[in-house]
Amino acid sequence: MNKSDIIRQLLAGRSREPGAQGAAYAPANIALCKYWGKRDEELNLPVTSSLSLSLGSLGAHTEVSACDGPDRVQLDGRELPPDSPFAKRLSAYLDLFRENHGFDVRTESSVPVAAGLASSASGFAALVLALNDLYGWELDRTALSILARLGSGSACRSIFQGFVEWHAGSRPDGMDSYAEPLQAEWPDLRLGLLELSTAEKAVGSRAGMKNTVETSALYSAWPEKVADDLLDLHTAIKERDFERLGRAAESNALSMHATMFSAWPPLCYWLPESVHAMRAIWRLRNDGLPLYFTMDAGPNLKLLFLDADRARVASHFPAMRVVESNERGMS
Amino acid sequence: MNKSDIIRQLLAGRSREPGAQGAAYAPANIALCKYWGKRDEELNLPVTSSLSLSLGSLGAHTEVSACDGPDRVQLDGRELPPDSPFAKRLSAYLDLFRENHGFDVRTESSVPVAAGLASSASGFAALVLALNDLYGWELDRTALSILARLGSGSACRSIFQGFVEWHAGSRPDGMDSYAEPLQAEWPDLRLGLLELSTAEKAVGSRAGMKNTVETSALYSAWPEKVADDLLDLHTAIKERDFERLGRAAESNALSMHATMFSAWPPLCYWLPESVHAMRAIWRLRNDGLPLYFTMDAGPNLKLLFLDADRARVASHFPAMRVVESNERGMS
Repeated sequence: MNKSDIIRQLLAGRSREPGAQGAAYAPANIALCKYWGKRDEELNLPVTSSLSLSLGSLGAHTEVSACDGPDRVQLDGRELPPDSPFAKRLSAYLDLFRENHGFDVRTESSVPVAAGLASSASGFAALVLALNDLYGWELDRTALSILARLGSGSACRSIFQGFVEWHAGSRPDGMDSYAEPLQAEWPDLRLGLLELSTAEKAVGSRAGMKNTVETSALYSAWPEKVADDLLDLHTAIKERDFERLGRAAESNALSMHATMFSAWPPLCYWLPESVHAMRAIWRLRNDGLPLYFTMDAGPNLKLLFLDADRARVASHFPAMRVVESNERGMS
Repeated sequence: MNKSDIIRQLLAGRSREPGAQGAAYAPANIALCKYWGKRDEELNLPVTSSLSLSLGSLGAHTEVSACDGPDRVQLDGRELPPDSPFAKRLSAYLDLFRENHGFDVRTESSVPVAAGLASSASGFAALVLALNDLYGWELDRTALSILARLGSGSACRSIFQGFVEWHAGSRPDGMDSYAEPLQAEWPDLRLGLLELSTAEKAVGSRAGMKNTVETSALYSAWPEKVADDLLDLHTAIKERDFERLGRAAESNALSMHATMFSAWPPLCYWLPESVHAMRAIWRLRNDGLPLYFTMDAGPNLKLLFLDADRARVASHFPAMRVVESNERGMS
């Protein structure tokens, strides 16, 4: 079973003729319980389920149209060289849909690319939504989520706003591996982005994940950790128990990084500044401030706190960018 | 089974009368495969075996004599307050041997106390050897290793010089849980101490270990990791395969710290400077320098390299203190 088979199945009876233009927006998302490890490399099928929070207006807006000649990929107004990793990855994905023509893809991204801020997630989700618009497929969100997953695993979560769970599924064809929004709101929950570096990562999360699954002795304990954290997160969200949410999210992120330290070669996305910020958070929490963090496969921290503590948190982290709840589309 | 029972058994038929004075030296040791987790808190019985390298002339020299009145503990010429943690821990241990008298203990330590440089290991080993001298017990090294373990787990390894393995054992009384020296030398192996902080640790390794065993989801994978690393270390030492030794030691240390990150509250002995040094080592290794590190429950790094690379390593880490092979007593 490969990507083409899945796409043929999903698009059966749908148009193969592109219209004039498709456009769509998809938010970035931050996993509170991480996606770390694949059971199928080709189809981006995960070892475990995961759960995320969307970043509202931080995301990608993509316009796509068919064109003569080769693909043209524009990111934030700059034309990318066709042999750049981003353009090549996009073109390989577009190969799955095209018939003898190129695509003109223009993406405006409000999240820094490749700094652990899930830019590929919003990028591929926006592209899939834009293709759905371009071709007039009118696919349901489950099918769109599966299509997005084929581009980049966590992109399947960026099809939705708010709290989103990606079900790992168990089928070899991945037809049960898609995201769904939780029927839950938490208006005073805040996420603060603490960017410590926007430099391109030395090891992408795709490669890092693969190396961890293959070489980390501690990875065997990861699936059970995820199962525990997911249960905690569901309860915490349902009961609006912030400490429980913060604890599960922080412990999950630290455990993911822990599996990387145990890989060979060791995989360390942390910078000295990351440890400095973690220690500051732990000190503040010891002093009574309900503040937690999560981290993706990068050096940056994402702070978790409640709106009531926003001023106090901001006073300690003046560079933090707070994602507003209305930006999260949780109305 | 408690400590007193074990000691009664070990000292059966030996003198209970202290002589005028006992004195002894014991080296600190750095584990290449770590001791992390107890199966018995009272008897310091470990979950896994471990393997260390002695630090030669870095260690503790202790003189002990019986005295009237309460214990007097001197460390590096300073009299410690009887209610200080170090003095209390020593007195509690001495309770196991005394009959109605105090002890006068004078220790000169060449390793910084409580900075992850195994000062309690050399301290308790030197004390046990000094008591053996004071009472004229003439115990064999296995019995001395068990006595030292009852004071501080890793102290059982500091009874010996060179490469030392502490067998976890399986008996509830711990009579099969002691250290033994490996019949192996490696004259051009070097260990470089990179002290980034000598500040007292916020969480001692005793408490950190307990919290990790009890709360870390990844700890379940630790015993198998240790088994793999021990096999690798034995082969590496036998074949003088430095890359294999370095890889096993570094991965073992990182995995130990990984189990701590997964504990709750998260346990992080790393400072920003620790990550800075690790990254420098990884860069140098990528550039072809065979350089590895290990870390104990503290922020400091211990570099592993061969004598041929000493100058190159020292040029990058001018603050490093190299432990000489003749200091390791590996003649």
